[in-house]
Amino acid sequence: MSDTLHTLAATIAARKSSDPDSSWTARLLAAGPEKAAEKFGEEAIEAVIEAVRGDKERLTEEAADVLYHLLVMLTARDVTLDEVLSVLDRRAGTSGLDEKANRGS
Amino acid sequence: MSDTLHTLAATIAARKSSDPDSSWTARLLAAGPEKAAEKFGEEAIEAVIEAVRGDKERLTEEAADVLYHLLVMLTARDVTLDEVLSVLDRRAGTSGLDEKANRGS
Amino acid sequence: MSDTLHTLAATIAARKSSDPDSSWTARLLAAGPEKAAEKFGEEAIEAVIEAVRGDKERLTEEAADVLYHLLVMLTARDVTLDEVLSVLDRRAGTSGLDEKANRGS
Amino acid sequence: MSDTLHTLAATIAARKSSDPDSSWTARLLAAGPEKAAEKFGEEAIEAVIEAVRGDKERLTEEAADVLYHLLVMLTARDVTLDEVLSVLDRRAGTSGLDEKANRGS
Repeated sequence: MSDTLHTLAATIAARKSSDPDSSWTARLLAAGPEKAAEKFGEEAIEAVIEAVRGDKERLTEEAADVLYHLLVMLTARDVTLDEVLSVLDRRAGTSGLDEKANRGS
Repeated sequence: MSDTLHTLAATIAARKSSDPDSSWTARLLAAGPEKAAEKFGEEAIEAVIEAVRGDKERLTEEAADVLYHLLVMLTARDVTLDEVLSVLDRRAGTSGLDEKANRGS
Repeated sequence: MSDTLHTLAATIAARKSSDPDSSWTARLLAAGPEKAAEKFGEEAIEAVIEAVRGDKERLTEEAADVLYHLLVMLTARDVTLDEVLSVLDRRAGTSGLDEKANRGS
Repeated sequence: MSDTLHTLAATIAARKSSDPDSSWTARLLAAGPEKAAEKFGEEAIEAVIEAVRGDKERLTEEAADVLYHLLVMLTARDVTLDEVLSVLDRRAGTSGLDEKANRGS
């Protein structure tokens, strides 16, 4: 299961050059970064709502939507998953997870 | 790098039972799911803004913040990273990434 | 023009007891506070995006959507526009707009 | 109470040309539209959370914060409150509130 996100990221990246009519992801990428950001923002709101409501199953589904749309938004700006994970690795490695996470907020 | 998220998730989970004063993550978890959801929402807004601005480096940093705070929010509701990844695996496996992603929106 | 919001608030309040099939507002209110909150959140994201993009006309339209959906969300929880304006009056009156706005953040 | 928003909008507009150190609003406006949008987005998230939680008093306070930060964000882009209210008047007047609200979503 550890490669799920990389597989998904690769699938999304491949959609960037395909026909917008061929898939939902291709259409979203063709619509531009603002549209991808809007969809990501909408999913984030839905995840927030389920986290407050406390419905674990729906929160799990919404979190999956957040990850998918985060990857689409990153792809729309040519940022890779590995670049994002490198930031997390760096924060964890150099001076402790908590301090870095705090600083990043 | 493929284990970054699992390592981070394990670190955050371990904070759930530790002294709130011991770390930023422990304090956030002690404050409850609503506070975790609020912080996640704030980071999502910041990521949206950087995606629209088009600053790749800042978008990368904000995306890392989103992942960290998503994991904290999930931990606050006892949802695991693997449960979320399972949803993505299921969607990709059963009837195609695009259709499932679409349905989930 | 100063009564626009009160007229709109009264129209929305009247929809709360009407047939969900009779209008968009009635349907939204019948769906419950979570759905109203979700729609408000989506419009807020769109307003943020237009503010960052700097398209004045689209920002104006999105801000109107934000006000409309804010009123629907408040109505779903039986909070009136006047109760919200009273908070702003109180903040402005007692010890200065800026300090209170700051405290409220 | 009907002039609360116009009074607040005028106060905020006056801050646009004042010393950033003189008030919270002046500092926020000096920081640029992206920062104003970020603060508005944060307040919107908090209002969503209180709407889902169902705490009327806190929702009222958060809605006031949303209105204040919406006006700051609009001021940062030189959009006036009256321009936004005109959109709502136009929607209500020409072909019915509900249809227009729907279209705007």
